Amino acid sequence: MPPSTMPPKGTRDLLPGEARRRQYITRIIEAAYEAHGFEPLMTPSIENLDTLLGKYGQEGDQLIFKILKRGESLQRAMAGKGEIGEGDLADLGLRYDLTVPLARVAAGSQNALPRPFKRYQIQQVWRADRPAKGRFREFTQCDVDIVGAASICADAEVFSAAATALTGLGFSDVALMTNHRDVLFGLIEAAGIDPALEGSALVAVDKLDKIGWGGVTKELKERGLSEACVDRLRALLDVDAASNAATLDHLEAALKDSARGQKGVRELREILSLTAASPAGPLVRISPYIARGLSYYTGLIVEAVTPQLAGSIGAGGRYDGLVGMFLGRDLPAVGFSLGLDRLEVVMEALGLFPARLDGAPEVMVAAMGDPVGDMALAAALRGQGLRVDVCVEPDARLGKQFKAADGRGIRFVAIQGSEERAQGQVAIKDLLTGHQQSMGRDTVAAAIAATLRGPSDGAEGA
Amino acid sequence: MPPSTMPPKGTRDLLPGEARRRQYITRIIEAAYEAHGFEPLMTPSIENLDTLLGKYGQEGDQLIFKILKRGESLQRAMAGKGEIGEGDLADLGLRYDLTVPLARVAAGSQNALPRPFKRYQIQQVWRADRPAKGRFREFTQCDVDIVGAASICADAEVFSAAATALTGLGFSDVALMTNHRDVLFGLIEAAGIDPALEGSALVAVDKLDKIGWGGVTKELKERGLSEACVDRLRALLDVDAASNAATLDHLEAALKDSARGQKGVRELREILSLTAASPAGPLVRISPYIARGLSYYTGLIVEAVTPQLAGSIGAGGRYDGLVGMFLGRDLPAVGFSLGLDRLEVVMEALGLFPARLDGAPEVMVAAMGDPVGDMALAAALRGQGLRVDVCVEPDARLGKQFKAADGRGIRFVAIQGSEERAQGQVAIKDLLTGHQQSMGRDTVAAAIAATLRGPSDGAEGA
Repeated sequence: MPPSTMPPKGTRDLLPGEARRRQYITRIIEAAYEAHGFEPLMTPSIENLDTLLGKYGQEGDQLIFKILKRGESLQRAMAGKGEIGEGDLADLGLRYDLTVPLARVAAGSQNALPRPFKRYQIQQVWRADRPAKGRFREFTQCDVDIVGAASICADAEVFSAAATALTGLGFSDVALMTNHRDVLFGLIEAAGIDPALEGSALVAVDKLDKIGWGGVTKELKERGLSEACVDRLRALLDVDAASNAATLDHLEAALKDSARGQKGVRELREILSLTAASPAGPLVRISPYIARGLSYYTGLIVEAVTPQLAGSIGAGGRYDGLVGMFLGRDLPAVGFSLGLDRLEVVMEALGLFPARLDGAPEVMVAAMGDPVGDMALAAALRGQGLRVDVCVEPDARLGKQFKAADGRGIRFVAIQGSEERAQGQVAIKDLLTGHQQSMGRDTVAAAIAATLRGPSDGAEGA
Repeated sequence: MPPSTMPPKGTRDLLPGEARRRQYITRIIEAAYEAHGFEPLMTPSIENLDTLLGKYGQEGDQLIFKILKRGESLQRAMAGKGEIGEGDLADLGLRYDLTVPLARVAAGSQNALPRPFKRYQIQQVWRADRPAKGRFREFTQCDVDIVGAASICADAEVFSAAATALTGLGFSDVALMTNHRDVLFGLIEAAGIDPALEGSALVAVDKLDKIGWGGVTKELKERGLSEACVDRLRALLDVDAASNAATLDHLEAALKDSARGQKGVRELREILSLTAASPAGPLVRISPYIARGLSYYTGLIVEAVTPQLAGSIGAGGRYDGLVGMFLGRDLPAVGFSLGLDRLEVVMEALGLFPARLDGAPEVMVAAMGDPVGDMALAAALRGQGLRVDVCVEPDARLGKQFKAADGRGIRFVAIQGSEERAQGQVAIKDLLTGHQQSMGRDTVAAAIAATLRGPSDGAEGA
């Protein structure tokens, strides 16, 4: 029996239509990031296991795909005395995100990189997570980060780049839910919560959107918070989400006794001003309960959400500590990551893809019993800039060839039968209108290009 | 001590300049493949180990990076009685080439795919090979294949696509060394060599370019061929490589008693005619000693070589058996694969990259003490289609900002000091000419675009 033709669990093949949609998204995001002066970086898919371990928490370490040692070093590991662990058997791991590789490169190549370093990176990552709808074990992240700039101007650039990408993709109903690490700290302080419970409490609060205050209250109590603390926290977070200004005024009053809280509110006000004229301006929604990966972020925290998807389509924030893990001293950094696979799901649901994606052939040269002549015609048309398919089944009937071209979205078929050949002519069949016309061989490319790209294009089908 | 900042052995980081060069090559190859009607396919980086094993020979199986099982299934494997092997510990492997995944998809998704299926795929592959100059453990292949077409017209399309890519990249001195499986079979037959020694003999002959007839003769004898066989083989292969016509006439005479040999010669003549008008025409060089992965190819065999690199920059041929390993019945296929990393090495050596690659910012907005105003100016310029960097270090001196912009290849700096702000003006400094000029805020984008893209661009620097 032949082997299975299925890809591994949690992964998928992208057939041409899906691959073109991915190319379409990627190009728009790249253009948005480049419009903001970010430069491309590519890092290997495999990293030394030491680079990855200890960066994503204990749960993250479990989710790293680990690569078996090879040859002698595997034999040595297997022959070892005592219990053999994962660490003995594996020396490499698959990239888990794009931030740790950036931190590694920023620390290792700092003399070769501009400072600050604005980079974008669109590459795959792998997590041995339980697969679910829209959640894969191999997926693609689209990251922008600025390393080496402490100013909130850098945060504003990242916000603008992310918003430009999202609006460029056609999202009209996306929000950048924005919070600040210091606001969260201030809220815990103001609620009188034991600092030791801060992390635990914020994990619960972060679920407010999903489980409401009822669920959050229950969780907070389970995590050991007193009723009084929960009530105070709820009052502090009782904000009118309809207006950023109202939310900020409320927070400013609520956190008046917390210096860190005040700093957080000030920076939230600043990010609003700095992004006001950019595509991010209308999208920012101050959301004091957003917490995300708390241990990681040190300043602004942002999460991109749409009503069509539970969870986020992107997230980011300031993380001034991570690069230091490789450098030995802190280096400020801020970034944002869009999840390409989730974007695809939502864009498909919203109908945000154009009906015709670029890249498909524009004309097919029919097989008419003279392969050398057909191939020469194709070469001539390609030389004039057209995307040309050739029927490579010389015995196919013409009707079947028309059908095959139409099925692949090719509009024109070029036919060079014996009669046309004798006269130096080519017949062009327009599969959209059904119209067929003979013309001199040298004028074919211009005629097709004019119909496809000319001003009459839109009217043709009407 | 912080962890190492090195990527794993045999892999590398592509910093912005290198990443842009990679983007440049990728776009040209994509355009060449799409000009020939090939459609994109993307497959997962990880494959089930069963999909990979047994497809690349015993040596290939050893070079597959294998992924450790996880959680309970790893524990079960480790707790197993008796000797534990690689197969017990690993369930997945990293993609080793793009051809086996294509065969898997062509077999598994045949009803969803056009027939014949013309696909291109530009993705990474991994091999646990000994790293060397220009040979990496993670590298990128750029494949075109046609599955489901037996006609040699399909081979011609693949040749033309490969040649269009190579000439598009600027190669002027590349050859497509072309041979045919049946010619090789005929030569062995005509030399009176034991068919059991065919594979072994051809591995030696394939090295003719590298070690000459002296070395090949020695190897052939070591592999058990008699002196008479070696002499006959050498006489059969004693061709004038200067002319394809002469080589083919020689082969036709030499193989007159071998039906398969004659078929091979006929197809070599056909591929010359079919590609004559295409970019492949001038590059094809009939080379009867080219053998490559003999067990794999069933028809034409081709290898792209340049004088600047030992070994090939690409290779391909017809393999009518491989898809059948997944489908249960043979499906004809022909393809070609370019090695992106090797192309980079040779193009760098030949100076084939343009001095300025697309994508860098066109203008930098200087930080002039009013971040909100600076960010708004950047947003306005981006809205008009420019790629704009903003200085995110508000306290940097202007001279240092000019230097930073110049260092990143940014030509223009937009300066909006307090005086300009009061007048609705912006000063534009051209770092190439040193010229500085104030203009109305609304005219900045058009002025910069005109200088960068207008007809006067080339003359500016003179």
